[in-house]
Amino acid sequence: MQLSGVRVLDLTRVLSGPFCTMLLGDLGADVLKIEEPAGDSVRRQGAIKDGLSGYFAQFNRNKRSMRLDLRKPEGKEILARLIRESDVMVENFRPGVLARMGFPPERLHELRPSLVVCAINGFGSEGPYKDRPAFDFIAQALSGFMSVNGTEEGEPLRSGLPISDLVAGLYAALAITASVLRARETGKGEIAEVSLTNGMVSMLAYIATNYFASGVVPPRSGNDHPIAAPYGLFPTRDGRIALAPPDDVFFGRLADVLGCPELKDDPLYGTQSARVANRERINAIVGGKLAAHTTDYWVKTLNDAGVPSGPVHGVADVFEDPQILAQKMVMDVEHPGHGTVRMLGFPMKFRDSACSVRLPAPDLGQHSDEVLAGLGFDDAARARLREAGVI
Amino acid sequence: MQLSGVRVLDLTRVLSGPFCTMLLGDLGADVLKIEEPAGDSVRRQGAIKDGLSGYFAQFNRNKRSMRLDLRKPEGKEILARLIRESDVMVENFRPGVLARMGFPPERLHELRPSLVVCAINGFGSEGPYKDRPAFDFIAQALSGFMSVNGTEEGEPLRSGLPISDLVAGLYAALAITASVLRARETGKGEIAEVSLTNGMVSMLAYIATNYFASGVVPPRSGNDHPIAAPYGLFPTRDGRIALAPPDDVFFGRLADVLGCPELKDDPLYGTQSARVANRERINAIVGGKLAAHTTDYWVKTLNDAGVPSGPVHGVADVFEDPQILAQKMVMDVEHPGHGTVRMLGFPMKFRDSACSVRLPAPDLGQHSDEVLAGLGFDDAARARLREAGVI
Repeated sequence: MQLSGVRVLDLTRVLSGPFCTMLLGDLGADVLKIEEPAGDSVRRQGAIKDGLSGYFAQFNRNKRSMRLDLRKPEGKEILARLIRESDVMVENFRPGVLARMGFPPERLHELRPSLVVCAINGFGSEGPYKDRPAFDFIAQALSGFMSVNGTEEGEPLRSGLPISDLVAGLYAALAITASVLRARETGKGEIAEVSLTNGMVSMLAYIATNYFASGVVPPRSGNDHPIAAPYGLFPTRDGRIALAPPDDVFFGRLADVLGCPELKDDPLYGTQSARVANRERINAIVGGKLAAHTTDYWVKTLNDAGVPSGPVHGVADVFEDPQILAQKMVMDVEHPGHGTVRMLGFPMKFRDSACSVRLPAPDLGQHSDEVLAGLGFDDAARARLREAGVI
Repeated sequence: MQLSGVRVLDLTRVLSGPFCTMLLGDLGADVLKIEEPAGDSVRRQGAIKDGLSGYFAQFNRNKRSMRLDLRKPEGKEILARLIRESDVMVENFRPGVLARMGFPPERLHELRPSLVVCAINGFGSEGPYKDRPAFDFIAQALSGFMSVNGTEEGEPLRSGLPISDLVAGLYAALAITASVLRARETGKGEIAEVSLTNGMVSMLAYIATNYFASGVVPPRSGNDHPIAAPYGLFPTRDGRIALAPPDDVFFGRLADVLGCPELKDDPLYGTQSARVANRERINAIVGGKLAAHTTDYWVKTLNDAGVPSGPVHGVADVFEDPQILAQKMVMDVEHPGHGTVRMLGFPMKFRDSACSVRLPAPDLGQHSDEVLAGLGFDDAARARLREAGVI
């Protein structure tokens, strides 16, 4: 596997950090999840089935678990010994907390010069908001994302998904993997950082660049596209269809398949800019045609004609869709003691070295003994640590 | 830099692929953008200033450009020679197109056994929809994302950002970097693939796991959080504030700072589940308090008390926010011949080996001569290729 032999010490909890380390684990890294004595709070969140949180199971596959109280001196000592044997450490404490626990960057690199450290936080470790408590929703609001999500007449809207947590986790996994590549070649470690807010700001993409170039603040566009028409959701005989012909060539195919080839030469509709200026009219013409047949009919007919279109799936539909199933984006994983757990599949596909679930999500502290034995703690020493509440 | 010395051959255009290769370039890779004779269509999209598209400038920084007609035999021959000298090739043609151009996977690895190839497409290269035209909006609809984005009473809503393009670009950059790490150690290349739809399905996160465990299809929740209250946007004296106390501890801090400590022990509001059951009531109580002061007052007061909250920034506000500026999330880059271009900064921060703009976005074919000279084409040979329309 891509990251076989990369040892990751994972001090993160809840979502963004565990998503990052799940990605590293899916790519083959050996991830050791360090949990406070009560365990990651996600173990108790979301729907619980046979004693296991599906949310926890999904985001902690391909990890081992060790329980460790980092507030106790022996806990810190064990952490130091683990750092000496690790390639990567990921944490999502607030900025400064790790240093106050006794692990400032210089000590980390004394313990392991090639260590790649990655912090995930809300706003970055420099600047006036660095000490603020972070949360996905706040990053969505502060980053500008919510100002362009929603309908023009409605209020700014958060994403239905915890998108800033997930995007930060993806960036962190990339920053770590790139830094490990460099560390392998130079022996030099790195201190990397990703924030929920910066990640979402970077997603503003052409929204930001158009603002920079024009000075015009974009409105919430709902399902309209700022520079394309027709575009959006249209009612069919039995549901709705998403339609998105991105340019004049695609519009020409649409006009042909709808039986209105004359639209291509109509001055009101012949060009993208004309159609955007006459959005309501062209939407009405296209909508009138689409309402006459079913969603299935149009999805097949339009795609056969090369016009991008598709159904608007609810969450149940997604996991019955033949393409999603063919792509194995849903998997059933055996969890000894908890039955079978359904979870999301792997979006990164590799021909030779495919991602797989080598380990189901661990029970709390399931690997504490094997890890400590590896560090030289014998049965008696481990019993003492357990009694003292360190592990 | 992390990816110094990694040579990337970039056959992609528009957004998802160029975003992926921008990330690789930001991390230090040497990215050669191969453009069809007319150039990447994004050169002509979005707001144009001094002859340069800000959209193009942002997503093509840290790349060189070579113009190459891959439909011509000499163009294909030059591509084969470039592949022999590359570590990575990224493409976002429809599945099968690259093979039909004469470059099936086996030939790519004959030319360069250690080559990491990454395809970015709409639905994956296997399954019933593999040949459908892809587009960000369709992936947002098909993946289930739109079904949870929007208000409960409104229709399914696309994201205000091209989120499926961007997420796929991030996954592709991670898949490539991890595969390069393996190729460096084993000499073995890889064929990787990421689709817009699979990337968005993987973002369903706890929405999907809760559905798998409970069978309940989640509604669009607007700005409410399915399992937390109070949560959302609240009017202030002069605007709106985003408020998100994630659990009882944070709610206790909120109750104290609002001057209503009795709420903590009220059976209607004392626990998260009680507050979710009485969402309208608790929102009314909290909203009444928040309306009495300005957004600035509450953002400071609540954060000082440790309650996650923030302003809802429009796109103009974002780039005036002191934290965003302190984090250098907006940059002014000199583009010789086009003046200064404002663009988004780097969300991945590194203490030792920071991302930077080593090269502004290239003019079309700006580096064709230096690349061809490196392959041994002399002045006369290059003049002949130019005359034949190959470059």
